[in-house]
Amino acid sequence: MNHSGNTPEKTRNIMFSPDIDPACHSDPGAWPATPRRTNTLSRVSHQVADVERVARAGHLGAVVWLTGLSGSGKSTLAMNLERKLFGAGFMVYVLDGDNLRHGLNSDLGFSPQSRRENTRRVGEAAALFADAGFVCIAASISPYAMDRDTARSTAKGRPFFELYLKADIETCEHRDPKGLYRLARSGQLRDFTGIDAPYDVPKAPDIVVDTVDQTLESCVEHCFEFLSCRLRTTR
Amino acid sequence: MNHSGNTPEKTRNIMFSPDIDPACHSDPGAWPATPRRTNTLSRVSHQVADVERVARAGHLGAVVWLTGLSGSGKSTLAMNLERKLFGAGFMVYVLDGDNLRHGLNSDLGFSPQSRRENTRRVGEAAALFADAGFVCIAASISPYAMDRDTARSTAKGRPFFELYLKADIETCEHRDPKGLYRLARSGQLRDFTGIDAPYDVPKAPDIVVDTVDQTLESCVEHCFEFLSCRLRTTR
Repeated sequence: MNHSGNTPEKTRNIMFSPDIDPACHSDPGAWPATPRRTNTLSRVSHQVADVERVARAGHLGAVVWLTGLSGSGKSTLAMNLERKLFGAGFMVYVLDGDNLRHGLNSDLGFSPQSRRENTRRVGEAAALFADAGFVCIAASISPYAMDRDTARSTAKGRPFFELYLKADIETCEHRDPKGLYRLARSGQLRDFTGIDAPYDVPKAPDIVVDTVDQTLESCVEHCFEFLSCRLRTTR
Repeated sequence: MNHSGNTPEKTRNIMFSPDIDPACHSDPGAWPATPRRTNTLSRVSHQVADVERVARAGHLGAVVWLTGLSGSGKSTLAMNLERKLFGAGFMVYVLDGDNLRHGLNSDLGFSPQSRRENTRRVGEAAALFADAGFVCIAASISPYAMDRDTARSTAKGRPFFELYLKADIETCEHRDPKGLYRLARSGQLRDFTGIDAPYDVPKAPDIVVDTVDQTLESCVEHCFEFLSCRLRTTR
């Protein structure tokens, strides 16, 4: 706290002086006629440094992005991987796409635009968690490659791993854990990824998780080992 | 992991069976003609229990909601309180309204509807952090009382504290740390809270933080003591 309250008047001026990044400070001369007011928005810096969060956690903050078709096993892998990482001492949290659609993304539908916005918000939320020092496991169909790339850049240089849950559509449809494929095939559900909405298969994922021929345990173990050796800063 | 892979066929069915909350499972018979598909959305449960997160952190997850006029000192208090709590061992993270408008809320303007959506998303994000075990300090003008109430209910029973940063408009305008009041008074900025947009003063905040007559140090100390004794589970 770099202020001292001497006289009341002086105190009022400097007591609550926001920590403004000059680069983001508004320039009245460049004021645009837009309702966004973007250039009037300041950024405020945290006073807890990254290195302090990392030192306390013993690992880096990161985003672990799980993408794949409905039924490919994203949520299952996410929750089991969270369990495994937590047990090993990691600060870890799952942002599950389905869960977020009950909350943060409850205003969004399934049009291409809504799906893009959905992925954008998951990416932004995941980046906040990584900034706070968490290993954030984001499980989201995230069908468009460009939006997954955006999520990566949103993480602003923090470790970001794209995990592709590889399962053919036949297997996913056979599993159909939520009965959605059946609804999609009968025409009761539109814009369903893999049926009448596209899915861009990742071209260069950090891990391909084969959820058809590998057991859940081996998938979790593989992901855990991969992440652990890349994120731990203490042994 | 409550599955065993016996035969390949059997394995495929149970290997990746999402952990679905039956209460939220879709009922095809109740399928509505809406693009929201709300009732097809399942919830997935975490396998890390709250008590485990609390036991490790030594404190409850919570939302600390800072509301007040622009210039009332929200960001300054938030960042200093984060520093103080972190130093005392808390898992703590600030969601700053201005910072979020560069990211999660970058698509929103300042119309009443946009402000409501802005507050809603801050509340949802803060609830996620609290769920992950953090003390999440949310600093947002959040001008409408009803939206702050929504943020409280979004926290779903977790500790939620509303802190009202009390500073009269004259003081805030005199401080004008970002030059926004000057722009608002000159008509270059519309919908500015306290000038030509409303601010609902909290009727029953958990703490009134007087940023006019109290020093920053005393405000931080007051809030820290208040939170510490309510959230710590270990001494």
